[in-house]
This record gives sequence, C-alpha cells and structure tokens, in this order.
Amino acid sequence: MERFYVGQTASVTKTITEADIVQYAGISGDFNPVHIDAEYAKGTRFGQRIAHGLLTASLLSRLLGMQLPGPGSIYLEQTIKFLKPVFIGDTITATAEVLEYDKEKSILRLKTECRKQDGTVVLAGEGKMMVPKGGDKI
Amino acid sequence: MERFYVGQTASVTKTITEADIVQYAGISGDFNPVHIDAEYAKGTRFGQRIAHGLLTASLLSRLLGMQLPGPGSIYLEQTIKFLKPVFIGDTITATAEVLEYDKEKSILRLKTECRKQDGTVVLAGEGKMMVPKGGDKI
Amino acid sequence: MERFYVGQTASVTKTITEADIVQYAGISGDFNPVHIDAEYAKGTRFGQRIAHGLLTASLLSRLLGMQLPGPGSIYLEQTIKFLKPVFIGDTITATAEVLEYDKEKSILRLKTECRKQDGTVVLAGEGKMMVPKGGDKI
Amino acid sequence: MERFYVGQTASVTKTITEADIVQYAGISGDFNPVHIDAEYAKGTRFGQRIAHGLLTASLLSRLLGMQLPGPGSIYLEQTIKFLKPVFIGDTITATAEVLEYDKEKSILRLKTECRKQDGTVVLAGEGKMMVPKGGDKI
Repeated sequence: MERFYVGQTASVTKTITEADIVQYAGISGDFNPVHIDAEYAKGTRFGQRIAHGLLTASLLSRLLGMQLPGPGSIYLEQTIKFLKPVFIGDTITATAEVLEYDKEKSILRLKTECRKQDGTVVLAGEGKMMVPKGGDKI
Repeated sequence: MERFYVGQTASVTKTITEADIVQYAGISGDFNPVHIDAEYAKGTRFGQRIAHGLLTASLLSRLLGMQLPGPGSIYLEQTIKFLKPVFIGDTITATAEVLEYDKEKSILRLKTECRKQDGTVVLAGEGKMMVPKGGDKI
Repeated sequence: MERFYVGQTASVTKTITEADIVQYAGISGDFNPVHIDAEYAKGTRFGQRIAHGLLTASLLSRLLGMQLPGPGSIYLEQTIKFLKPVFIGDTITATAEVLEYDKEKSILRLKTECRKQDGTVVLAGEGKMMVPKGGDKI
Repeated sequence: MERFYVGQTASVTKTITEADIVQYAGISGDFNPVHIDAEYAKGTRFGQRIAHGLLTASLLSRLLGMQLPGPGSIYLEQTIKFLKPVFIGDTITATAEVLEYDKEKSILRLKTECRKQDGTVVLAGEGKMMVPKGGDKI
C-alpha cells in the first residue's frame, strides 16, 4: 500500500496560551505591542492581544513534520493567509490534505488550514514537503 | 514625508543557536528528528541537524512587526520558499523591501528574504502587512 | 544632526505575565516563594505573587540596548530602586531620558524609570551606556 | 543567635551558556547584536558575543532571594557596575556580604560582586533587601 495518496488527511490541535505568545515573542524577537502589550491591545480593533500569525503557523510545522508526511521530511514551501485573529485561550486545529503526490520526486503538495474551536478558519494556505528516500512505503 | 514608499528596506540579524531549535521544537511540537536528533541527522543528506524552516521565518515576524512596517501592524499573508538548510551557528539576516504600498487600504506588499553569513539565500517569499490607522505618516 | 542629546527620550512597553515570571525564575534560579509560590504569596503583605525586581529591570536592557542609545551600545552601570510591587498582568512602560552625553568618551547617562498602566512608578534609577565608535551620528 | 550579621557572606555559581543568552534576549526583548549576532560580534572590541549585563546580574536575584537574606525577602535597591564582559562558557560566582543590618526596619545592605572562573571581577555593586517579619531569627 502506498503511504501517501491524494485526499489523505491529518490534524493536530493545541490551545494557544499567553505563555506561547510570550515564548514566541522571545524566540522571534517580535515584541509588536499587538502581541505583548495588553493596554495597547485594548485600543485596537481586536480589543485584546492576538497571537503572532507565525505562532499559529507553527502548528503546521508540527503537523507536516510529525504526521503528514511526518518524521524525516523536509519543508520546501508554505503559503499562508492569516484570515482571522487568534486570541489567548483559543484552541486551534491544524489540518493538512494531500493535493498532489509526485512519487518520483518524493514531493507532496498539501492544503493546510487552521481552525478555531468554533470552526472559524483563521489561517489557510498550501505546503510542499519532500519525503526522505525510502519514506514513501509503509 | 510618507512613512512608507516603494523600495524602502529594513533588516534584522540573529545567530540561530541550538537553544533556538530546542525552544522552537517546544513551542511548535515539531520534534522531527531532522531538527532534534543529532544521531539521525548524521545519516541525512545534510549530515547534521537543521533549523525548522518556520524558525528561520520567525525573523520575518520580528522584521515586519518591529521595523517595516513596524509596531501596530498586522500580518495578512506570507509566502515562503525554504531554499537551503540553516545549521546551528548560522547567522541569518532577514531583509524586507516594499514592493507596493496601497495607501488607501493601508496595505504593504514586501519582498522578504533570509540570507546566511556567506550571502546564500536560504528563504525567499513575499509578505503582506496592514498598517494601523494613522500609522502611515511620521 | 547629533544622534544623542540631553532631554532625548525613548520608551518600551510590555505586559508582565505569569510566563515571564516562570521563565525568569528558571534563568536566574531565583525561586523565592514571593515569586513562584501562589499559596505562600497569599500570606504576604501583597497577597499575591510579585514579579522579580530584575525581571522588571529587564525592560531597561531592551530599552537601552535596542532604542536609546540602541544596537551596538554597551551597558556600563545601572542603579535601581524597586519602589512598588509588579503583579501578574501589570503592563510596564520603561522610559529613558538622556541626562548627560559625553561625546568624547561616547558615554550616555540616562534617567530610567518603569511605570505601571496606572502611572505608578515601580522602578527608578540611572543607567550609563557606551556607544560604539561612529555610532553618535545619524 | 542572630540570623544576620555584618560580615556574613554567601555565594552561588553558574556557567553562562549560549542558551542563557538566547533566553534572556527572549525574556527581555534585548536583541542587541552584541548579544545575539555572532558575525557582528566578531567586529567588536570583544571579538565575540557577550552576555547581557543584567543576565549576569540575575545571579544576584538568586543569591539574595534564595540565600542571603533568602526566601521571603524583598528587593529594595541594587547598584551595578558592569566592569568586564562575560562570554559564553564563563562560570560566574556571585557573592554577597552583609555591610549593614538594620534590625528594627528589617533591612540588610549587602556588597554584591560577580567574578569569573579566573577571579576577574565582572560586576560590582550593592544591594538592599527587606526581610519578612519574623525572618531575622533562625
């Protein structure tokens, strides 16, 4: 049986906490007040701090690197649209679906999406991953 | 004077350390052995652990969120091609250049790029940011 | 135009979160129960955990190292009075004002202060920074 | 026996690692290239990255908060002179010596100092701590 096929899906879920935002600010150096200044954030359209967009996108790193296609695979490309804000306490589910599998080149193209607990799509895009040699059979 | 104009550039630099990779694995949950298993990594084409692609991309979060367009701006889109591996100890400079500035919608489109200390482009793409109201004048 | 002048000011702001306190305890090894033991803290005069004083002071590191005088500068001295407790959730603004600029020695003396969201001064003191050669002109 | 007396000393030691610097940059937001850009640092007088001064000072937070005067005490004041650079891999010993003990006000004044493995004093200053009620007897 082929390990990868068009239409194959996988998902991972995580609650985005204040600690995640503090740590992502620290690792990235992105101290934009929309993320780390609760007083400033009150005056924005969102009324509160929002998660860094690329923090939400980090769920894709886990999803693609750990599940589909999984361990050993290499990230080639990612497109991202940040559609809605993610707030502290939101639980995000990232899903991937194989759109194309080039077996010869060992490359997968995947639809990637992140949704909130209420189903709202907060992030959408496509990823491209390369599978390690011999990694395309179960 | 306009605060933003086509051709405007900015950059930030950081050395990617083992600690960054460990922390990024922790925040993302991406424990792909290519990033955190030194023994496994010896057997890959790279011969050593590589940084998570989205860890390198986190420099863009800092660059766009702190410099150009800077504090208060909101991430709308990002495309990323991961062109070359980043190893522990590599010093990465992320640069952004304004390609388009839609003053009415307060939206900037930027060319974004990350280079190693030797000039190799490791990441390329485009970002789109929205500037807060009143943030387009100095 | 001179890059530095007496009376010049800069500021940075951050909300102090529980995650910051946990991380600062980890990096410093200061596990004083007033910072990390919620039950102990109930019995203190403050009735709750307080941030490490030097965690609040870390905003000065960012302010002086990134803004005024900024990148490349070296910390020479700092005096600190911890005037009021900082609690989880407090938003702290650190400000610096140039008191003296010795152009020949490339040394700046600055008044440094941290205030809460309600204006209360929680930390006061003075810093001294050395500017890198050629760093005193725009 | 009195718990505190003039001349009383205590010390703590820690090796400052690259991970400490990365984390301190993250918690403080101080991404000054002298701390986190290995390429930039090659061109400075030090020839390599240096630890944040207030990272070295964090050993004082541990020393005073955990040892002398110890748990429950509150930081009132600290003066710091950063005398020499601290590099990755340096092992720092922080020492405190009681200079004055005001038993009525429960306030201690201490000489504080940090030395490298070779004995060089890298940081010097004085701290003032308040001891919790009933905390002055063993």
